[in-house]
Amino acid sequence: MRVYNFSAGPAVLPEEVLKKAASELLEYGDSGQSVMEMSHRSKEYEVIHDGCIALLREVMAIPDNYKILFIQGGAHMQFEMIPLNLMQKGKADFVVTGQWAGKAHSEAKKYGEANLIASSKDKTFSYIPELDKSKFTPDADYFHICENNTIFGTKFWSLPETGGVPLVSDMSSCILSEPVDVSKYGLIYACAQKNMGPSGVTIVIIREDLIRDLSETKFPTMLQYKIYDENNSLYNTPPTYSIYMCKLVLEWIKENGGLAAMKAHNEKKAAILYNAIDNSKMFSNPVVKKDRSLMNVTFVTGKEDLDKKFIAEAKKAGFVNLAGHRSVGGMRASIYNAMPVEGVQALADFMKKFEEEN
Amino acid sequence: MRVYNFSAGPAVLPEEVLKKAASELLEYGDSGQSVMEMSHRSKEYEVIHDGCIALLREVMAIPDNYKILFIQGGAHMQFEMIPLNLMQKGKADFVVTGQWAGKAHSEAKKYGEANLIASSKDKTFSYIPELDKSKFTPDADYFHICENNTIFGTKFWSLPETGGVPLVSDMSSCILSEPVDVSKYGLIYACAQKNMGPSGVTIVIIREDLIRDLSETKFPTMLQYKIYDENNSLYNTPPTYSIYMCKLVLEWIKENGGLAAMKAHNEKKAAILYNAIDNSKMFSNPVVKKDRSLMNVTFVTGKEDLDKKFIAEAKKAGFVNLAGHRSVGGMRASIYNAMPVEGVQALADFMKKFEEEN
Repeated sequence: MRVYNFSAGPAVLPEEVLKKAASELLEYGDSGQSVMEMSHRSKEYEVIHDGCIALLREVMAIPDNYKILFIQGGAHMQFEMIPLNLMQKGKADFVVTGQWAGKAHSEAKKYGEANLIASSKDKTFSYIPELDKSKFTPDADYFHICENNTIFGTKFWSLPETGGVPLVSDMSSCILSEPVDVSKYGLIYACAQKNMGPSGVTIVIIREDLIRDLSETKFPTMLQYKIYDENNSLYNTPPTYSIYMCKLVLEWIKENGGLAAMKAHNEKKAAILYNAIDNSKMFSNPVVKKDRSLMNVTFVTGKEDLDKKFIAEAKKAGFVNLAGHRSVGGMRASIYNAMPVEGVQALADFMKKFEEEN
Repeated sequence: MRVYNFSAGPAVLPEEVLKKAASELLEYGDSGQSVMEMSHRSKEYEVIHDGCIALLREVMAIPDNYKILFIQGGAHMQFEMIPLNLMQKGKADFVVTGQWAGKAHSEAKKYGEANLIASSKDKTFSYIPELDKSKFTPDADYFHICENNTIFGTKFWSLPETGGVPLVSDMSSCILSEPVDVSKYGLIYACAQKNMGPSGVTIVIIREDLIRDLSETKFPTMLQYKIYDENNSLYNTPPTYSIYMCKLVLEWIKENGGLAAMKAHNEKKAAILYNAIDNSKMFSNPVVKKDRSLMNVTFVTGKEDLDKKFIAEAKKAGFVNLAGHRSVGGMRASIYNAMPVEGVQALADFMKKFEEEN
């Protein structure tokens, strides 16, 4: 029996998608091969590869002047690639709203001036800081945010107004959860393993004028966006099966109403869980209400022993991966697109029962 | 019906492995989850991750002073990481026996002195050059070879005697095809998608004294071996499903007699195909006999039109991906571990029939 899996990533995938993948794992269509066995230069694979790109463009309404790249190495590799590729004048602005935003900031220091515009570290990243526009660097190469914080459960509900400075957003844990206006960004990146597919592939959506020719530099070839762009992400063998899985997930999103429907579905789930927490005397959510994430819902009892008991009993009852990130403890329920309403309602019911009994 | 797939990579996988993967794709054991959905920090995944490492160590008899790392980005990323991590004195030696060895060589020039010891480019890489030891750099940081050339179908059947200089080998297309003495190498690397699993993960086997602390440098964090080593390849989310597939393939190898049995199996297949070519008046293999690969068998008719006709008719008959690499043309049959003897025999029979008819 399948459990309700609240993992922050790799995370739950739609059951229909997994069933389809299982059914065609040995033979894809009439190709006589598994997708895993297909040459990345074959016509059979080309349909999958280009199909995934086209579907992502359609589902996210990505304008034509943005390129979609498949890159390996996770968001962490982007912490390197973004400054390496985008820092022309050698400076960028950062808002630090958690561990990953902090890493993006500290890695960028290797490549140039990485200015800290604001941070919410003073209150354990429990809010999104107000931004003082006078602190922004007017001629920065880019302005970086981590749009949804997976660990602490916060979300930017309005974007910084950066004027002509390209906005770069780590959307790893919120991509595909709601419609976004891609034209407001210079670059969007997201590892797949939260809302899009299995781990092993990272999506980069980049405005084409930001893709620089670095062939005359000594920068690692595999870290240059232009190499991926020029070769349709087929300079070398891409993670073909991960891309295939992303395509199946995108088909599922489209069949289920696209991103507007995903947003409504996600708001409904988040409301159930936040209401359960707000109406509880045992559980509380440490995040400033207006900054709450739809994807990652954190909560604590205030007592470490009780948190542990809750996590253990929840696991026995079929709710897994509810422990908070190893750096913060407490509980976290990640409720990405693929988590059904029933899973969240069942968790809320379980929390109520646990509170009554303890 | 499954075809006989002679792709050079991603390549055929054992049918038993694919069936097992399909059967547990929705739910792995009693975990209630797909492997793709498992948190990479969960106990369930840990068993797979550490199990894959332990199996590879067992199957290849890897000594304790070698570390096994899972890295993304393919062999191409290793063309960058190897010089970046290993070039301390800033010089290394290279033998260029084909396109990938050539890329490894040219990428290394970014990081230091990359000396060309020998090349077989003069005869379209159809042989492994004799090495003049007096040309070796005595204090090089390493000596690089591509042990099996996937495109041209050559293989180093004896290793260069590099003395104290660590030998670095790209084993992408021959790893797991026969027993090797790992202690003769400083570093072995191989992308998975030929003999080990799906694309998206690359295995690095490195002697531990070669792992340098680069934390004080400005080198990209994700390109430092020490980061992977210190974190058991879990610094960030690894390509979990690809690693799981590699584990299944390693289990299959072990169950089928390990690397000694694989070697016998591969020699048998290669003999069938080379004999068919050598006994043919239509087909010929351009490689010097003593340097022939067991994994990639190239052949040509000498007429481009006839090559095309052969490839097209073979495809109709259920033999796919027989076209040579786009850079060289002709035919290539990649006959990795997972290709059954029956597949190779059927191809040899088909070649005979084609010759009679044309």
